[in-house]
Formats: sequence, C-alpha cells, structure tokens
Amino acid sequence: MVGNTRKKTDLNPNNSVDCVIFGFDFEQIKVLLIDRGQNLGNSKNLRALPGNLIYEEEDLDEAAYRVLEELTGIKDIYLEQVGAFGNPNRVNKESDREWLKSIRDEPNARVITAAYYSLVKIDDFVPRAHSFAKKAEWIPLSEIEELAFDHFEILQVAKEKLKQKIKIQPIGFNLLPEKFTLSQLHKLYECIFEKPLDKRNFRRKIQKLNILTNLKEKQRGVPHKPSQLYKFNEENYQLLTQNGYDNFGF
Amino acid sequence: MVGNTRKKTDLNPNNSVDCVIFGFDFEQIKVLLIDRGQNLGNSKNLRALPGNLIYEEEDLDEAAYRVLEELTGIKDIYLEQVGAFGNPNRVNKESDREWLKSIRDEPNARVITAAYYSLVKIDDFVPRAHSFAKKAEWIPLSEIEELAFDHFEILQVAKEKLKQKIKIQPIGFNLLPEKFTLSQLHKLYECIFEKPLDKRNFRRKIQKLNILTNLKEKQRGVPHKPSQLYKFNEENYQLLTQNGYDNFGF
Repeated sequence: MVGNTRKKTDLNPNNSVDCVIFGFDFEQIKVLLIDRGQNLGNSKNLRALPGNLIYEEEDLDEAAYRVLEELTGIKDIYLEQVGAFGNPNRVNKESDREWLKSIRDEPNARVITAAYYSLVKIDDFVPRAHSFAKKAEWIPLSEIEELAFDHFEILQVAKEKLKQKIKIQPIGFNLLPEKFTLSQLHKLYECIFEKPLDKRNFRRKIQKLNILTNLKEKQRGVPHKPSQLYKFNEENYQLLTQNGYDNFGF
Repeated sequence: MVGNTRKKTDLNPNNSVDCVIFGFDFEQIKVLLIDRGQNLGNSKNLRALPGNLIYEEEDLDEAAYRVLEELTGIKDIYLEQVGAFGNPNRVNKESDREWLKSIRDEPNARVITAAYYSLVKIDDFVPRAHSFAKKAEWIPLSEIEELAFDHFEILQVAKEKLKQKIKIQPIGFNLLPEKFTLSQLHKLYECIFEKPLDKRNFRRKIQKLNILTNLKEKQRGVPHKPSQLYKFNEENYQLLTQNGYDNFGF
C-alpha cells in the first residue's frame, strides 16, 4: 500500500479524486463501486465511486492511483482524467454529510474532485475492499440509478468520454481477453455505444481496418457452435495510426 | 461585470479556473493571453492564460465565464472543460510566486485549477484588459514558447482536445465568418491538425458530407481570382448526426 506513512492531517481537505473503472463480462459493462457500509436508519446506503481526499504534496494522477489501490486493492492499470467536478453542493446530500462527519477532519469543507476513468478486463481484477470501503464490487452499469455525492453525474460524463475515445482509438480491446470472437467484440461495442450495431457492417469495418489476427483456432467448451477466435493485431494498428488514421467508430 | 459585490475574502484560495480561447485569422490559430505587467528586474514578464481563483460559493463553469469576462471583457461564448491540473509545484516559478505575493491573500496556498477552452471568431471579440490583466491580446499559437504557471502545459492539452473534438463535430465553423471559401476552411483544418492535408481529399470529403451550402456568390475585393463562397449547412449537419454520424476528421 502506498503512502501509509502519511498522516490524516497531511490530507488536503479541499480536493479529492474519484475513479470510474469500467469492466466487461461478455454480457454487459460493469462499474467498480464501493459500499461504505452506512447504517443510517431509513436513509439509503448509497454506493460510491472509489475516491478520497488527496495529500497536500501529491499530484492528482498519483492520488488517483493511490486511492484506487487503498480502497479496492486494484493497481497497475492506466487511469485517464475525466475532468474536474466542483458544484458547490456536491457533498451536501444528507446521507453523505453524515458519513463525512464520521470520517473527515473538516467534514464541512467544500471539496472539488478530479475524476479519472479506466477500462479493464474484469477477470484480471478481483477487488478487495480496504479502508473505509466495506465492500468493493462490480455492479452492472444498467442497474446503477443513484450514487453518493455527484458520482452518478461523474459516471455519466465518464461514459461519454469512453464513447468518444473508442471512436478514435480501439481501446475496447482492453476489456476483452487476449482471444475473443467477433460476436464478443460486437457485443462490447454495442454495450459501450448503448445501441444495436448492424452485425454485417461491423464485421466489414473490422475486416477493412485489418487490426485483428485470425488465430485459426475455435472456442472450446461452449454450449453453441464454436466460433473463430481472434486477437488484436497491435502491429497493424501501429501502422494505421502512424499514418494518422483514427476512425475506429462503428 | 459579474460578481462585483463579492469581497476578496470570499475567494477560495485553493481552486482556480483558466481559459484557453482559440481564434483564427485565416492564416493561423491565435490564443487569447493576458500580460500581468510584471516588472521584475531581469526575470521574464511571462504572459498567462486568463485565470483566477473561484469564489467559495461558485460553480467551476460559472467561475470560468466570470473570470474570462473580468480579465478580458469577453463574454457570451461557450466554454468546455479541458480538465483539472494539480501538479503540487504548478505555482512555484519564481516570477509567479512574486506576482502571487503582490495579489493574493494566501500566496503560498496550493492551487488546483480547472481549465476550459473555446473557439471563437477572432473578429467578433476584441479583448479589453481589466483587473490585474494589463493587456489582453491574441497571440499566434506558433509564437508561444513559455507561459506563466503551468499554462503552457494546459495549452498543449487544450490543443489536443481541440484536435480530437473537431474530428467528431465540425466545430471549426465557429472559427470562420458566416461566409467562407473552401481554401479558408482547408487552411483552418491544416492549422488545427498542424499538418498539411491533401486539398483534393479534403474537398471530396466535405462534398460527401454535404454540410456546406454553395452561396452562388464570390469573394469581393480580393487581390486574387475571387473564390466561391459557402456557408455551413446546420440543417444537413443535424440530419447527419441524428443518424449517429460523427466522423468529421480529414
């Protein structure tokens, strides 16, 4: 664990980081959320994005990696910034205020947060809750209706960034295992764009891009006719982008 | 001017906003910079992006519009966030520290900034310096080599955002007058992408997109053979995007 020699008083009371980690399980997009284990009578125990205050001497990027690891055990991933969120009322929900009182030295301070996001292969990262996170779990994006603080808004903005990003860089491969089928890739893009994509056009475009290698190998142990397996062709992708190509939308 | 009943003590000492305003003069991209009129012996009088601390009760977006207007007189434009910049040493340049001492109540506070950017028609906005800005001027992007604080870094990130954005939305039209020639549009895209673009391919793609209206009118009073004038066809653009189209790169 990073930064465990730092004291609570070294925290910057006004600035935090929050992380939106997207994963894919072949069926749907999931998001890594923490449960702060609140027990507040009738008020909802809202889940939250993994996030916390930064340290005084800490860079924002550095803080994002540290906080994610401290709360969920997840490290060695690439985080990209979503942006700053600074609505003056962003920490004013009753249940959030209660929780802040139980945990922060200056629970009434205004906090501006820098949000980060990442895409990971869900199987590579088994979250383990630490610190004030009582649970850290992959929750289906479609089931998330409300979150602590302004985290639901942050999630929406991160989702938009992801949609834009995947059109100019084939980052979707980060969400798949090394070997995958065209159907799995197609399903992933449908999940990210939140709309059906014509299967034939999708396959035609992928073929034209020439960024997949046919592994001449089929799926095993599946309850349906096994499909052809592919892997991402990093070399061809580099050649494409060296020539300035950046249209990976479907 | 907004916010003139607020007191200096209402400022949030830890969080600021900075604005990167891009303009185009048919030849090159320019950036709106302020001169703080520093006179520091041998140290350079570095220009800065228009920026300042936010007020305690103020939203980040709101602060960006206010600060831009307070320092340069420019308002009624659309600002989009670039991101948060929080390097712990971002305000530690000697000349910046000197200036902060002369102007801030807490000159040694760590300041995290939220940066914003915009594209405007250069002729529509004549900057007028106010407050601590002694001058507010359009400076050619190609001539900017160093800026106050981490503003040079912010400028680079904003430039990248602009490049990405213009590939999925034809925002370049914001930088041109209502009537323009294909050469002017071509030049603009070359300036934004910072590379030559094949003229024939460019024209072919623009034609295929069908987002320009030929005004059946030619340039007047130009020292060369007058070119055909066009305007942006908002209606056709809306039709394209309603069908999910978002590939405006060249």
